[in-house]
Amino acid sequence: MLKHVAIVGVGLIGTSFALAAKRDLTPESAPRIIGVDLDVQYVEQARQRGAIDAAGTFEQAASADLVLLAVPVRQMPQVLAALKPHLAEHTVIIDAGSTKQDVIAAARVSLGNRFPQFVACHPIAGGERHGPLAADTTLFDGKNVVLCRSQENTDAMVETARLAWQAVGANVVEMSAATHDALFAAVSHLPHVLAFALVEEIASRPNAKLLFEHAASGFRDFTRIASSSPEMWRDVALNNREALLTELDAYLLRVAALRNMLQAGDGEAIHDLMQRAQSAREHWLSGQFDQFNQEDGL
Amino acid sequence: MLKHVAIVGVGLIGTSFALAAKRDLTPESAPRIIGVDLDVQYVEQARQRGAIDAAGTFEQAASADLVLLAVPVRQMPQVLAALKPHLAEHTVIIDAGSTKQDVIAAARVSLGNRFPQFVACHPIAGGERHGPLAADTTLFDGKNVVLCRSQENTDAMVETARLAWQAVGANVVEMSAATHDALFAAVSHLPHVLAFALVEEIASRPNAKLLFEHAASGFRDFTRIASSSPEMWRDVALNNREALLTELDAYLLRVAALRNMLQAGDGEAIHDLMQRAQSAREHWLSGQFDQFNQEDGL
Repeated sequence: MLKHVAIVGVGLIGTSFALAAKRDLTPESAPRIIGVDLDVQYVEQARQRGAIDAAGTFEQAASADLVLLAVPVRQMPQVLAALKPHLAEHTVIIDAGSTKQDVIAAARVSLGNRFPQFVACHPIAGGERHGPLAADTTLFDGKNVVLCRSQENTDAMVETARLAWQAVGANVVEMSAATHDALFAAVSHLPHVLAFALVEEIASRPNAKLLFEHAASGFRDFTRIASSSPEMWRDVALNNREALLTELDAYLLRVAALRNMLQAGDGEAIHDLMQRAQSAREHWLSGQFDQFNQEDGL
Repeated sequence: MLKHVAIVGVGLIGTSFALAAKRDLTPESAPRIIGVDLDVQYVEQARQRGAIDAAGTFEQAASADLVLLAVPVRQMPQVLAALKPHLAEHTVIIDAGSTKQDVIAAARVSLGNRFPQFVACHPIAGGERHGPLAADTTLFDGKNVVLCRSQENTDAMVETARLAWQAVGANVVEMSAATHDALFAAVSHLPHVLAFALVEEIASRPNAKLLFEHAASGFRDFTRIASSSPEMWRDVALNNREALLTELDAYLLRVAALRNMLQAGDGEAIHDLMQRAQSAREHWLSGQFDQFNQEDGL
């Protein structure tokens, strides 16, 4: 069992992880958790919520059994570099970044010969709210964590990472970092960017106030993820740039094709596209996407 | 008070209207409501839910005190033409279509000299579920209904329409049909089309199954409205074509600009856009959009 845990970045993810790691445990059996964050208010809030036991330094964090890096991905290089000089031999570092090839590359550079101690992870959990006050003990329950093992990782290090995520309620799924980045560019990074773009488009209009007065639940849900952290999502976009550009280009083509169906008044083509999309989504929601047929309902 | 009401189209909207119109009333004081629908199963379901008292014909509907047309907008011309020959002088027809200039134009043609009895309305309520089983007595509570008065409407007819919507819990807001169609193209029709397009894009990939396996709550909420009725939304798109094309073009330009910021690696521009969008959305959610400032948080 882990006795000492360090959380670098006590925002939504870091604080939720800490809360879940202490859940159902007595003070004696629960890990001692320190929080490291440049934002002293975040650290204090995480402490008041009972997530962390104390504020800590990078030097202290570097000798914990487990270090979770839950900071925007472009801060990973500096954070890893700050840990490196003090890193204990048994310490396992995991991260919670939304992109993986870039974080692994940064860890390789920043950690040098200690790189095998870094196990790249991405919990598929979160929300548009951020900060320790938005943290939730159950955030990871039943959620997937993608673990992208590097060749240098030892079985023992990977096992420690796996057990840590399972201890907070998550399921661990392994895939390559390249596969991860391509998949999440499509199903996560793209919709985030599209949602920000729609709100920006509406908000920049001279009649924005009137438009927002009449926006309803469809708009609200479509744009929920545009309430997410701008810093985090700027970093994700930049750090998964090639995959996201590919997705943006595919989506722009798709919307332009639909636009042209509309201009041509081609109701049948529009209906068929909407019907396929509706059917695909319903199959997905019911856990039966493998039974989705492109001809469904046409 | 209305004694006889006819609902043409007993789907989500029509059945919810009927349920709400009977709510809190004794069988003696509640209106008698007939349902007209080509789908006999829908009629039976609406009857079993206690929303309608009986199935009815267009001829019967045409002498009700109030007729609600809750059918996809491209069915309005035929429905109005079927009502016209039997239309009683006191009958007020309202609709629930998501587009207004087209429905008003159709009513003008189909109803001829009886056009003053048609009062164009759009309840800003609904959901991606459809059919009478998805109906909800509280669907209209506190929601806006946009009423687009035509010059030919009498004050009495408009007042009947207004009271009917208030009786089911809604607030009535008046605006011109042209204003309505432009506003809702931006805040409703555009996001619907964009959500359908994203699901279609993902579902059409060779690795669609894998992609959907990793899609999470952000994708789910962004695409919720892609579970909406394809027939209804094809009709909305076609019937508000010019306004929706304008919106699609603006959005395509906006996304292309963001794409170019990303290609250029312009993190500051991406951050500023996301920050403005996040701030605008938060101001909107808290009912304070008039205090949103484009420079917020930059």
